[in-house]
Amino acid sequence: MPLFPDFSARQKALKGSVFEKYLPLMRQQGDNLVRLHIGDAYRQPPYPLPIEKTFREAHPLFNRYCNTFGIPTLRSALSEKLSTDNALDFNEEEILLTAGAANALVVCTLGLLDPGERVMILTPCWPFFPGMVRMAEGEGYETPFYQRLYDQPDLDIAAYLDHHLQPGTVALYLNTPNNPSGKVLSRTQLEQVAGWAAKHNLWVLSDEAYDGMTYDDHQHISIATLPGMRERTLSIFTFSKVYMFAGIRLGYIAAAEPAIRALNKILVHLLYGPSTIGQQMVVEAVQTRRSWYGDFVRECQGIRDDCLNRLDLNLQSPEGAYYLFFSTEPYLRGRGYDELIRTCLEGGVSVAPGVDFGSDFRHHMRVCFAGEPPERMALAMARLGKILKG
Amino acid sequence: MPLFPDFSARQKALKGSVFEKYLPLMRQQGDNLVRLHIGDAYRQPPYPLPIEKTFREAHPLFNRYCNTFGIPTLRSALSEKLSTDNALDFNEEEILLTAGAANALVVCTLGLLDPGERVMILTPCWPFFPGMVRMAEGEGYETPFYQRLYDQPDLDIAAYLDHHLQPGTVALYLNTPNNPSGKVLSRTQLEQVAGWAAKHNLWVLSDEAYDGMTYDDHQHISIATLPGMRERTLSIFTFSKVYMFAGIRLGYIAAAEPAIRALNKILVHLLYGPSTIGQQMVVEAVQTRRSWYGDFVRECQGIRDDCLNRLDLNLQSPEGAYYLFFSTEPYLRGRGYDELIRTCLEGGVSVAPGVDFGSDFRHHMRVCFAGEPPERMALAMARLGKILKG
Repeated sequence: MPLFPDFSARQKALKGSVFEKYLPLMRQQGDNLVRLHIGDAYRQPPYPLPIEKTFREAHPLFNRYCNTFGIPTLRSALSEKLSTDNALDFNEEEILLTAGAANALVVCTLGLLDPGERVMILTPCWPFFPGMVRMAEGEGYETPFYQRLYDQPDLDIAAYLDHHLQPGTVALYLNTPNNPSGKVLSRTQLEQVAGWAAKHNLWVLSDEAYDGMTYDDHQHISIATLPGMRERTLSIFTFSKVYMFAGIRLGYIAAAEPAIRALNKILVHLLYGPSTIGQQMVVEAVQTRRSWYGDFVRECQGIRDDCLNRLDLNLQSPEGAYYLFFSTEPYLRGRGYDELIRTCLEGGVSVAPGVDFGSDFRHHMRVCFAGEPPERMALAMARLGKILKG
Repeated sequence: MPLFPDFSARQKALKGSVFEKYLPLMRQQGDNLVRLHIGDAYRQPPYPLPIEKTFREAHPLFNRYCNTFGIPTLRSALSEKLSTDNALDFNEEEILLTAGAANALVVCTLGLLDPGERVMILTPCWPFFPGMVRMAEGEGYETPFYQRLYDQPDLDIAAYLDHHLQPGTVALYLNTPNNPSGKVLSRTQLEQVAGWAAKHNLWVLSDEAYDGMTYDDHQHISIATLPGMRERTLSIFTFSKVYMFAGIRLGYIAAAEPAIRALNKILVHLLYGPSTIGQQMVVEAVQTRRSWYGDFVRECQGIRDDCLNRLDLNLQSPEGAYYLFFSTEPYLRGRGYDELIRTCLEGGVSVAPGVDFGSDFRHHMRVCFAGEPPERMALAMARLGKILKG
């Protein structure tokens, strides 16, 4: 059973890169080697592309396949970033580039789960994760968690998770800062989660898509920094949130090298490899992050406060991520929930239905406050307030 | 059992896009709708990106999530391309963008196969496809095919495939133009494959990555154009070969709308969606293909002939794709096969080991003749000829 440190039977049945065993010999040859082993085109695309000339010249291989783990310059920049910003000590070989955090998560479920094995999913959770467990023939089950921590910050987490633990569980899905609730786990809370996961010898799938996106005095802590957690944690990051580049579909997994090597085999069978030009385009963004990183987050905090003020419903202020997530029950006033969602749409506001975040949240709604400019957000809050207050 | 037109239990267990049922209402609202349902950033990335200013201005949403099926302009351009170039009549809604043909293939295996179900894999085949069948808990089995058609063009294909058919087979993996053998199936041969697949009610996974890459008087025919094949065929294309843009990781599936809708659910759980900017960058390439499409193919044909002449080993001339694939047995002269591959590497030439293309090809090697410029290819052929001739 793939408890830590084991991988799925599926993973073990896969062959890795065809050429892996010859890599040392290839490296020895360097530029002398004429590379006939990969099916690729030596010419750059002859049609118009909106790529700046200096970039094309600096990256003559932008159109070609790259190392299936990712390009060295980006892996190196990310290694520095993880060390400096997250106190995570992972070298280049311990980073795997993926087509977004979504892709990273399914690489992990496929790499870890054998049919019927269970994953504890702390909820509310990102709507597509349960399906990713099913993609691997696994069984996810929900444990309501993040909302509860707002109400009960000193919850005995180990006892609570023990109470919910089902037999056959091999992994825990953790997501802090949490989408949709905005909960950011404190060090004390994370220590309890970590100790509990280690006690049960679980893998921890740490979804850190909202890394860096925290407000007030809240700070994101990576669970892999806690004692004993480095080896059993797969830490997942993305370029879609603070980097504001969901359209590039890039993310990455940081983990101990045996896990990265195992997960690469899965990735190769899902994608062959990540986008070369996509990776090349964001290297500078990682390197220069200190010069631009904070502005958007500070702005989001302002928008958050403005939205809460305008709505004036006494909602919980999210500690991180960029969503308001709340129960609509006080505002239904005899309306059905689906009717409310449709009323919002007819009133010019689209919101995400709560049930997709967990079965406990059938009457919640999620509102993203970073996807439209502030003036449009003000309009949306006016519309939404009117609909909710009836 | 997921014979045509059924999908896998895995596919049926997945939920589609969260917002699908509200799409008509959203469309009605148009620009009036303030979109708070998706977690995205309204600002463009503030860091330097090597994207031309006019493109950024023309595509203000380049950094954001797009429709998980693909962007309308590209789906529309591809629909026209398939109709004009391939006689394939698929509208925009019958095209699904993916992260390369590799991704498209695994979307198909995960969408079609239940555990233990079998896929007939015609060989030699692309090395990662068998692993994609295993990813779906399916069982692939090899049927040596393309090389045999060189030797025996009038093979009774139906009888031959019947002879190899195993119980529990639900799909056939076809790849013409074939990687690695270069075989391009004739209309007569394809008709026999089609009739046989229909008789056994199989899905056909038609890997057309080398669409357009044919030489002399050979022409690529899409099996979905043949009578009765449109509904049961999933036709797979890529931007990695004639478009010379493997680094963008884009491909697509053309199929009847029920299949596209079913497969999108799988895609959403592997990627969420394809790259927005990647798709936007290649729209013009599709639209202008007639102005540049033929040059590289003609050049490859010249390189092919030059390589065959320089090697002077009386090898089969490939009809399509861009590989030489041949048995090294006459050239081993007491050397082990692995020793030969290493000798090539030490001699400055990397080649792909044959066993990865099928168990019948343990002593073959594959040489790509398009991945290095002609002068480097000449050098490589001199080196390789010397090693093979001993």
